[in-house]
Amino acid sequence: MIDVIASVNEARSDDLLNRTVIVIDVLRATSTLIAALAHGASAVIPAETVNIAKGLRAPGDLLAGERYCKRIAGFDYGNSPLEFADSPDAIQGRRIIMTTTNGTLAVQKCQRAANVLAACFLNAAGSAAIAAGLKRDISILCAGTKGSFALEDGLCAGLIVQELLAADEPPEINDFGRAMLAAYRSHADDLENALFRSSNGKKLCKLGFSEDISYCGRLNVHSIVPVLKDGALTPYPGSKSLSLS
Amino acid sequence: MIDVIASVNEARSDDLLNRTVIVIDVLRATSTLIAALAHGASAVIPAETVNIAKGLRAPGDLLAGERYCKRIAGFDYGNSPLEFADSPDAIQGRRIIMTTTNGTLAVQKCQRAANVLAACFLNAAGSAAIAAGLKRDISILCAGTKGSFALEDGLCAGLIVQELLAADEPPEINDFGRAMLAAYRSHADDLENALFRSSNGKKLCKLGFSEDISYCGRLNVHSIVPVLKDGALTPYPGSKSLSLS
Repeated sequence: MIDVIASVNEARSDDLLNRTVIVIDVLRATSTLIAALAHGASAVIPAETVNIAKGLRAPGDLLAGERYCKRIAGFDYGNSPLEFADSPDAIQGRRIIMTTTNGTLAVQKCQRAANVLAACFLNAAGSAAIAAGLKRDISILCAGTKGSFALEDGLCAGLIVQELLAADEPPEINDFGRAMLAAYRSHADDLENALFRSSNGKKLCKLGFSEDISYCGRLNVHSIVPVLKDGALTPYPGSKSLSLS
Repeated sequence: MIDVIASVNEARSDDLLNRTVIVIDVLRATSTLIAALAHGASAVIPAETVNIAKGLRAPGDLLAGERYCKRIAGFDYGNSPLEFADSPDAIQGRRIIMTTTNGTLAVQKCQRAANVLAACFLNAAGSAAIAAGLKRDISILCAGTKGSFALEDGLCAGLIVQELLAADEPPEINDFGRAMLAAYRSHADDLENALFRSSNGKKLCKLGFSEDISYCGRLNVHSIVPVLKDGALTPYPGSKSLSLS
């Protein structure tokens, strides 16, 4: 069984009990943390507030995060995947403490899940492969924005549903998942354009982050799949060198 | 501005303030009431409970409604559009008091709206034309089922968005509306199949209502657009003979 959930507001902890949850926040939290891990960071630690992030920082750790889409004052990084993709040397083997508007809330909702994975377009196929291998019911949680559905998260959920349907025994899908699958198929050939026309896409463009949107719209450039354990996101064992045909 | 809302649970009365609201419950409340009005009923009166429905009945009125998809004991009709389409003589000029699981809840959420219209695939083009002519922001409210999104309502919302986009000055659409538009376009050529595979479609099939699903999936066979006024749904003036090119 696959359930796609429209936003963090819609998610109820009980519905995620004992399931594998795939959290999606395409613009930009999960894209950014996947870029960071793919380019050499050892772990990403989600933090709810700026002060909690600062409190978690150990020597050698880096701080990353945004408020209103902009880098937090005094932080090493904002919430742009390009910052990590463009300067991998600076993050090799380092932990990154990251606070974003939506991401932490999503993680909190997943406390009773059996597994929590992070996904975006960059690792959609990898996250589907790892999730399928875990042999549990799957909930795909679109983080959304301020409690509302965000188009880019829904389209990514649709892509992941499509990947999961390729299995030998295609699972049941809830109605919202069917709608997202259909929406993704409709936009598969003009995905970047769809992201630019989404509400978050327009907002990021205005703030000068249009390159981030293009970056976040690339499909399956990383195999790495972050998995949450003891408050830290690290690459699922073997996912970094996953072969995706 | 067009907002599509995923389910009655997601709708907040304040967000509907002074707007034109199009309520959709494809399987089957709005399809049924539109079939009743198109085949000669003078009005459909939504009622919250069986007892309220019985209390509202004046001489000559007919009772219609379902619980768990089945006709209520002692009622003249269930919630099947075919009952009305197949026996128009019996309903000519009659008021129909109708109680369904979701419909009334949706109507209650719309108390502060400027206009409330009812739509389904049967009258999608007509409802878009009337709504556009009212020159207000539009909210398309997918009734859904038990507070959750229902695929058939979302696909119908997508079709209505497509109709509204054909205007000279295409309106802004929220992210959920964009997703539903994309989902509809993806299923435009196999709509009936999509309805049969939806959660409600499967349930109705099991209960022997597969003909209803096929009926409800027909596009624009009626021009009539029900509008809510003083607790009654009647044809929007002129909509019965609306010419839809």
